Amino acid sequence: MTTKPLLQVLHGQVVPRVPIWLMRQAGRYLPEYRAVRENAGSFLDLCFTPELAAEVTLQPLRRFGLDAAIIFSDILVVPAALGQHVAFEEGHGPVLEPVRTPTDLSRLSRVRFGETLRPVSEAIALVREKLPPARALFGFAGAPWTVASYMVEGGGGSDFSTVKAWAYREPDSFAGLIDLLVEVTAEYLLQQIDAGADVLQIFDSWAGVLPDSALERWALRPTVEIVRRVGAKRPDVPIVVFPRGIGANYLRYASECDCTGLSLDTSVAPAWAARELQPLKVVQGNLDPLLLVVGGDAMRDAAKRILDSLGDQRFIFNLGHGILPQTPADHVAALCDLVHDWRR
Amino acid sequence: MTTKPLLQVLHGQVVPRVPIWLMRQAGRYLPEYRAVRENAGSFLDLCFTPELAAEVTLQPLRRFGLDAAIIFSDILVVPAALGQHVAFEEGHGPVLEPVRTPTDLSRLSRVRFGETLRPVSEAIALVREKLPPARALFGFAGAPWTVASYMVEGGGGSDFSTVKAWAYREPDSFAGLIDLLVEVTAEYLLQQIDAGADVLQIFDSWAGVLPDSALERWALRPTVEIVRRVGAKRPDVPIVVFPRGIGANYLRYASECDCTGLSLDTSVAPAWAARELQPLKVVQGNLDPLLLVVGGDAMRDAAKRILDSLGDQRFIFNLGHGILPQTPADHVAALCDLVHDWRR
Repeated sequence: MTTKPLLQVLHGQVVPRVPIWLMRQAGRYLPEYRAVRENAGSFLDLCFTPELAAEVTLQPLRRFGLDAAIIFSDILVVPAALGQHVAFEEGHGPVLEPVRTPTDLSRLSRVRFGETLRPVSEAIALVREKLPPARALFGFAGAPWTVASYMVEGGGGSDFSTVKAWAYREPDSFAGLIDLLVEVTAEYLLQQIDAGADVLQIFDSWAGVLPDSALERWALRPTVEIVRRVGAKRPDVPIVVFPRGIGANYLRYASECDCTGLSLDTSVAPAWAARELQPLKVVQGNLDPLLLVVGGDAMRDAAKRILDSLGDQRFIFNLGHGILPQTPADHVAALCDLVHDWRR
Repeated sequence: MTTKPLLQVLHGQVVPRVPIWLMRQAGRYLPEYRAVRENAGSFLDLCFTPELAAEVTLQPLRRFGLDAAIIFSDILVVPAALGQHVAFEEGHGPVLEPVRTPTDLSRLSRVRFGETLRPVSEAIALVREKLPPARALFGFAGAPWTVASYMVEGGGGSDFSTVKAWAYREPDSFAGLIDLLVEVTAEYLLQQIDAGADVLQIFDSWAGVLPDSALERWALRPTVEIVRRVGAKRPDVPIVVFPRGIGANYLRYASECDCTGLSLDTSVAPAWAARELQPLKVVQGNLDPLLLVVGGDAMRDAAKRILDSLGDQRFIFNLGHGILPQTPADHVAALCDLVHDWRR
């Protein structure tokens, strides 16, 4: 039996304190992160240098009472490992040489996939060595739809018209991209488990732009398949899925996906999640990251309302989206205390 | 009793064909719109010149079998009428001189509010004269939260951190802005009814960025209050509310807002809406606008799935968001035919 409270919750055990971690908890809001980042070369260099990636992964754990680390990396290491050119331009987000046709697709290659991602496994192993025993370690990957969106659009900040037009016009050739991502993502997540990750999160940040049957085909089904493949080999490792912005379609994930947990975005009402989702899944979420910037009574009141709705059952406290760079570190400390001190 | 099918649906009558209109149906995808726009001066000049606004409002009705016109205007005419500087820059969306403090707020003025918006009423009256009798005419306004977002952020495309920080940090002073918008928006909608609008839509495009109790306070309650004020004077005029991106929180609008209809964004599953919302409200929606760009089987299949889920009960066909500029006009014609020809 594990002694890590976050894993205990995911395994259905009752724990005295609600566990907490925060999406993007290793990041620009920490001066010690910015110091490492400045000397690391490019963003991908940081992701692919095990000692540095391990160091920034551990930084927030030294400051705050967080119940988990999440390996410092990016969902776009997967297309990079398939041979797509990926760059992170300061202040502009990722820029990718777009994959838009079956010909582009045929140029992607799995030959160097495992080798390119080996530094991530090495970083995970380094973190695992140094991590206090009561803290869990998340591995993660993007879901195929979200990763495909960046691969096809060539970056973030788009209206998704190119990737959606491909999916709508030529579903059979687009399925080639999604199927490839299902395969390599399952493989990559299993590698992270082998390296020492004891829980996984799958980020589907752009699931919410897909309507109905397209959500089913391009977001839900591929995620279900990845969870199935990983679970077939490592049923001991819980998986949390974060299909952001899908509203009431969380119900479909709760009933159709064999994951252990669902991470809720900011817009999901905790009372609804307690009633409709929590009977089926561990629920994680969902404080507005801007409330962590604002702090004070506004943050405390909102966090308490979330805890009062969800804290009684199987629940992991988190944000509804990643930490914002302007977040004051002492607000993070205050939030961790508040969550750990909360009792019904 | 009205002979307009769209109004019949909103009044609970059974109609032989599902009515359809499309958000932003008067717009850049039409060459005759672009011709008027090029000679009209600024975008706001077009909104405030009754003959031109009426002309572009009627253009899509001449081409397509649409069941309603919606007056050509913009939700930002309201801040403009309160004295805030609003400009529309080509390709960059609206730019406003931001309102961010109680002092900024005190500079807004209702003195010229009615006078500034009189051209909208004149345009409505002109459209009403020329509109075929079986077509309804929508008046509209933005909901206070969405309008306030533009007023505070100074435009679109933001992360809403400024407006949310104000709302979270100083709810009492932010309430001054929201309360002002509730008052003037109710007044403006009643003016539109007086001029000839026979149905209204309230757009809350950014409701989805608000969590839980903030949604309740800044989006739901102000909209409920506007609907109450308009309904107290003109209970004969149905109101459709479009709180975009709120997911399962549509349930709260269905039970707590006295509007007649709810417009669904693209992410809402029609089967869920049929089960949970349609017993309480007329529902409207929600084809992905990108499917109208793509056309063909993908569009037809998706439209039919929406109709098969929702068409039997009180339903108005629409998009889940506004028409995209790259939409081919013949796809719009095909969609109107498909919807009108649909039978269970």
